[in-house]
Amino acid sequence: MAHEFKLRRRIEFAEIDMGGIVHFPRFYEYMELAEHEFFRSLGLSIHLPLDRGRTGWPRVHASCDFKAPLRFEDEIEVHLIVREKKEKSLSYLHVIRKLTPEGPVEVARGIITTVCVRVAVGEPLKAIPMPAIVSERIEAAPRELLG
Amino acid sequence: MAHEFKLRRRIEFAEIDMGGIVHFPRFYEYMELAEHEFFRSLGLSIHLPLDRGRTGWPRVHASCDFKAPLRFEDEIEVHLIVREKKEKSLSYLHVIRKLTPEGPVEVARGIITTVCVRVAVGEPLKAIPMPAIVSERIEAAPRELLG
Amino acid sequence: MAHEFKLRRRIEFAEIDMGGIVHFPRFYEYMELAEHEFFRSLGLSIHLPLDRGRTGWPRVHASCDFKAPLRFEDEIEVHLIVREKKEKSLSYLHVIRKLTPEGPVEVARGIITTVCVRVAVGEPLKAIPMPAIVSERIEAAPRELLG
Amino acid sequence: MAHEFKLRRRIEFAEIDMGGIVHFPRFYEYMELAEHEFFRSLGLSIHLPLDRGRTGWPRVHASCDFKAPLRFEDEIEVHLIVREKKEKSLSYLHVIRKLTPEGPVEVARGIITTVCVRVAVGEPLKAIPMPAIVSERIEAAPRELLG
Repeated sequence: MAHEFKLRRRIEFAEIDMGGIVHFPRFYEYMELAEHEFFRSLGLSIHLPLDRGRTGWPRVHASCDFKAPLRFEDEIEVHLIVREKKEKSLSYLHVIRKLTPEGPVEVARGIITTVCVRVAVGEPLKAIPMPAIVSERIEAAPRELLG
Repeated sequence: MAHEFKLRRRIEFAEIDMGGIVHFPRFYEYMELAEHEFFRSLGLSIHLPLDRGRTGWPRVHASCDFKAPLRFEDEIEVHLIVREKKEKSLSYLHVIRKLTPEGPVEVARGIITTVCVRVAVGEPLKAIPMPAIVSERIEAAPRELLG
Repeated sequence: MAHEFKLRRRIEFAEIDMGGIVHFPRFYEYMELAEHEFFRSLGLSIHLPLDRGRTGWPRVHASCDFKAPLRFEDEIEVHLIVREKKEKSLSYLHVIRKLTPEGPVEVARGIITTVCVRVAVGEPLKAIPMPAIVSERIEAAPRELLG
Repeated sequence: MAHEFKLRRRIEFAEIDMGGIVHFPRFYEYMELAEHEFFRSLGLSIHLPLDRGRTGWPRVHASCDFKAPLRFEDEIEVHLIVREKKEKSLSYLHVIRKLTPEGPVEVARGIITTVCVRVAVGEPLKAIPMPAIVSERIEAAPRELLG
């Protein structure tokens, strides 16, 4: 059972805005990359086959507090922590840190809450209990990790 | 003095993910488009010249609750409402509605809080009081608009 | 039968890179927007239902010559001209002009060649003759328009 | 003196369109990532300080032939080859291959031609000879590599 994951990444040119800093919607993409890599690290995929269609994980909530800007070629760590697990949803805390010679510095802290749904052609998205293979490998983190 | 603005927009192909719905970080871009158009509607720009450098508006907070998905070619309205105005910052509520034959349907509700800074070459971003020209044209909305 | 279309657009913040100009992959998005709006202007959609699945238009070639940069809040016109029509493909010339007080100035000239395919769950993309409804409304432009 | 570089990368969710394949403007971003990593591998940066301002590399031409689609979680290799070097410009061939259990399969082949400019506040972009540090480390590839 896993409840956290760390992704490392370098900030690329396409992510920088005309003010010279990462355009803020990109922070949510970094969080999403960490989530997908977390799944892969557990031998899972966000797209698992169902009897009809496949799983998807649309978001019902996303928020972020931005504490310091990120710039071109900065190295970051996205620290994903599972803050809540329900039958049909997962909620993650993501702490984004810039890796500096003096050590990691927190630059943003975000939350994404996501619901497991069935994606099938010609049907509206419908929330479903997450597959057992997911539920058996992901757990909520202990309180103390959530700072 | 203005405290709200409505932007209309059609959802384009590049904004849709492989699940067939708008990729969630795009909602923040829609909010940003409404903010920039709000400024333009008042004869303002998010980039105003300063004695040294120009203004910029990095975000310190952004959040969104997603209530229903948006799809290719949906027509939406982004309703920006100024929820808070301080000396150096503005905070907006954005209500995103899908325009349907039966009338507008709320699909998302987001908040962006943004700080006025000086952007100048070779200097770190520094919060400054927003220029008088902005302060004189934008006001916080009355409570009842904030639902 | 139509063989050209003009789209007007303002350059938005998210499209600008840290050098202060439109990030070049965005030019292809502008061309795509013009194509999709061209289809809509003819009562068509790029996604038309087929007996099984729907149409899609993946690209087999795209190129662009960039002659002058575009900046934040520039107004542009994307002039789409159908340069070639085959049974299963269309090729467009896109002339992108900046709208200035002195008149339009060409800033880029691109080509996109796209193939009509069937998109159906569980099947690889397969080129098909474009539906009659498309073929009856879109034609190649006369030579002299292609300059 | 270097004249080629290989970048490996996994296709991420945000890069996939509603047809289930990589949205074609992303291919140009992959080429750009390879270029920037090529510079870094040589101890260079695309942004080098000048006596006034810094270098930038806007594109004057970009083209791509797309031979097969890329899908979510595909692993690719971007093989950059310097096809031309002039006093003020570089032109790259990029061969993009999907890494499969049976070996690499070419899926796209693109060209980007880019000009060295001075980026300085309040000045238009101006082409300049590339700095000696760049010129001394990058060379055109031998003919036979360009296939």
